Amino acid sequence: MQKPTGELMDKVISLCKRRGYIFQSSEIYGGINSCWDYGPYGVLLKRNIKYIWWREMTQLHPNIVGFDSAILMHPDVWRASGHTENFTDPLVECKNCHHRFKQDTLTSPVCPDCGGELTKPRLFNLMFKTHIGAVEDEASTIYLRPETAQGIYVNFLNIIQSARAKPPFGVAQIGKAFRNEISPGNFTFRTREFEQMEMQYFIPPEQSEEMFEYWKQKRMNWYISLGIRADNLRFREHRKDELAHYAKRAVDIEYRFPFGWKEVEGIHNRGDFDLKQHSYFSGKELSYFDTQNKRRYTPHIVETSGGVDRTILVLLLDAYEEEPERVVLKFHPKIAPLTMGVFPLVKREGMPDIAKKITENSREFAYPFYDESGSIGRRYRRMDELGTPFCITVDSQTLKDNTVTIRDRDTMEQIRVSINDIMKKMRELIKGYERDRGFK
Amino acid sequence: MQKPTGELMDKVISLCKRRGYIFQSSEIYGGINSCWDYGPYGVLLKRNIKYIWWREMTQLHPNIVGFDSAILMHPDVWRASGHTENFTDPLVECKNCHHRFKQDTLTSPVCPDCGGELTKPRLFNLMFKTHIGAVEDEASTIYLRPETAQGIYVNFLNIIQSARAKPPFGVAQIGKAFRNEISPGNFTFRTREFEQMEMQYFIPPEQSEEMFEYWKQKRMNWYISLGIRADNLRFREHRKDELAHYAKRAVDIEYRFPFGWKEVEGIHNRGDFDLKQHSYFSGKELSYFDTQNKRRYTPHIVETSGGVDRTILVLLLDAYEEEPERVVLKFHPKIAPLTMGVFPLVKREGMPDIAKKITENSREFAYPFYDESGSIGRRYRRMDELGTPFCITVDSQTLKDNTVTIRDRDTMEQIRVSINDIMKKMRELIKGYERDRGFK
Repeated sequence: MQKPTGELMDKVISLCKRRGYIFQSSEIYGGINSCWDYGPYGVLLKRNIKYIWWREMTQLHPNIVGFDSAILMHPDVWRASGHTENFTDPLVECKNCHHRFKQDTLTSPVCPDCGGELTKPRLFNLMFKTHIGAVEDEASTIYLRPETAQGIYVNFLNIIQSARAKPPFGVAQIGKAFRNEISPGNFTFRTREFEQMEMQYFIPPEQSEEMFEYWKQKRMNWYISLGIRADNLRFREHRKDELAHYAKRAVDIEYRFPFGWKEVEGIHNRGDFDLKQHSYFSGKELSYFDTQNKRRYTPHIVETSGGVDRTILVLLLDAYEEEPERVVLKFHPKIAPLTMGVFPLVKREGMPDIAKKITENSREFAYPFYDESGSIGRRYRRMDELGTPFCITVDSQTLKDNTVTIRDRDTMEQIRVSINDIMKKMRELIKGYERDRGFK
Repeated sequence: MQKPTGELMDKVISLCKRRGYIFQSSEIYGGINSCWDYGPYGVLLKRNIKYIWWREMTQLHPNIVGFDSAILMHPDVWRASGHTENFTDPLVECKNCHHRFKQDTLTSPVCPDCGGELTKPRLFNLMFKTHIGAVEDEASTIYLRPETAQGIYVNFLNIIQSARAKPPFGVAQIGKAFRNEISPGNFTFRTREFEQMEMQYFIPPEQSEEMFEYWKQKRMNWYISLGIRADNLRFREHRKDELAHYAKRAVDIEYRFPFGWKEVEGIHNRGDFDLKQHSYFSGKELSYFDTQNKRRYTPHIVETSGGVDRTILVLLLDAYEEEPERVVLKFHPKIAPLTMGVFPLVKREGMPDIAKKITENSREFAYPFYDESGSIGRRYRRMDELGTPFCITVDSQTLKDNTVTIRDRDTMEQIRVSINDIMKKMRELIKGYERDRGFK
């Protein structure tokens, strides 16, 4: 495997724009800092990730149900969770130009922009604030949720009643959250609008350590199953003195980004903090009565909280390779946006018609891309850059024996199969996929 | 078919809470008006609708790509679109109690709450406003998008370049939008936070009438294909004097709600308004050069814009039936949250183990629900209320010949099949489903 040279982040960002993965939001108006749009191929990659996560977390896991709570919630939710008081960064302001800065990023005691004198630090809340209803006053202030998890906690009673759930059980959710970060950056790593995929596992208190270990391992395995190289992933356990106020234990799954090892997902043992807080603030008893053992208790929570956008960034970085004659994204075929390119070798002898027919017949099972423009080599390169695992080419032999070539993205090897066997062969290849293995 | 009696809306709202479809957001804190959470079964219904829409609009339609733009956009987007100026409702305020009211809903010239004198109407913008970055001033004001479509228009150049798209082509998107409605209501019909599924079709100007007709019919067929009864759906063409400022033609697909015929989806011929506006405001030329005919033009747009939440409400209302001994949701099986209930007739003779094994073996292909509690009749009723199309029951004959019963939700008929044939039989039944047809 050839190591990419130069600035990997810049190359991936540039590829993302060129190939329709990710664009800056409102780019034609100069952009909006730290918000990103997913283009025609980015949206497919994102959907594949979310689909695989959802399926594994709900459909295939016997005791986990799904949920989808609103972004706008009652402001008391954030008082109970501690966000109103604690979700803050210390900021200083320049007395001259009034620009503001995160205190912990300053390297000099004066304003980096104009050299002016700075104020003492003040706490700045990272929640986006807005007003609901016709009157803009204190009473109508609401927030864009800074995390999705609270939507599950406040519905604890609704969920156990309607789904007749008994601990241990989980609730899985995918949704947007918003943080007015002062220093966003590193492309889609830290953004102001982002998507979380999180699962809250409600358990009898005595099982919390065991379940923490279970989920920690299970979540690591999930990232590896997406095709991310295991040596680019690691656990990092939080020290006691860096644990968040709600956490009894926390471990990050970290990826080796070009800018260092950073968190992709956090697994947290939150104890009974959340249900206790919401019980106290709402006056509703958020607990569970175990009829078998005749005891009422507040379930403990082990949370797995991953970022969709970060996962996509990881997948792009990990898949990116430069070879002397091409750039290629070596995605696992199950997450690749397109399943296959379909090409007529030349634009005559009926080859385009056959290739178009293969394209249309595959739509039930695949995302195909028909392409007849430019040399065959150029068409292969385009699909390589997009990470499309297979290319089907109709050539003159097709006219004789109804076979086509299937080209493997990683090795550029080709085999011939009958047109009728394309889908069967591809399913086999997807199932047995290993990076750079080709048809072996 | 028995007509439901009483207040259908109230019954459906109550079923939604009882059975885990839809809860009011932040209910334990008194709720937040007009925002809703989707519970364990609501989220599955919602996912099924979105999946079917996405698949039909992108994967199965040769010239449509997907997109996923951010909720937070540059404020100039809304100046160009006209929302900053025109997306308003006239409000009056009581000079005494300061409550505000939509002018067109008032039935008397004084305040409905205290009888006080009212101000003259003032325009109130329906966009939710917030601030990005550390300073709350005019320059940092941004909005939560009131519609998803603009995210596609401003990316027109990015999309045609990266996906090499040539008109006619479409861009499909599903995402949240927000409107600070003064009079939200009718459950999930008019909400402040909602999800749109919309497709923008970019076409040579001369094709716009033809494409409008094409999409109008295609979208109506889609709702019927979900199992909604055709006589509860109709078109309503907008009169010239009610057309929005951007529209050359507009037709609504309406559903016969208990509160009247109302829009579920709009199909709009927007002409070249959007690309022209954004070209003017951004200074970027949003047009297309047709190399074959050597002409540059601004594509016209036909838009199909549907509401996810409204569609779900329609599906719930349309599926709801009361029979003397039960309430049942007669969803088309392809959209039903659960595929099947799996029950041991009694909790002995090994029946639970067999039923659990059937449950686990089906997860790859289905959303099963194992239930052993209560009488078999009660278990059937629960699944009826949830709209689960099939129930598999393991009984004493299973122990002899390895067969189980499959019960049809609509007719309550039962047939016996071998355990090994359950999935095959269900696939057949789903494919050939017609409401109330049963096994005929």
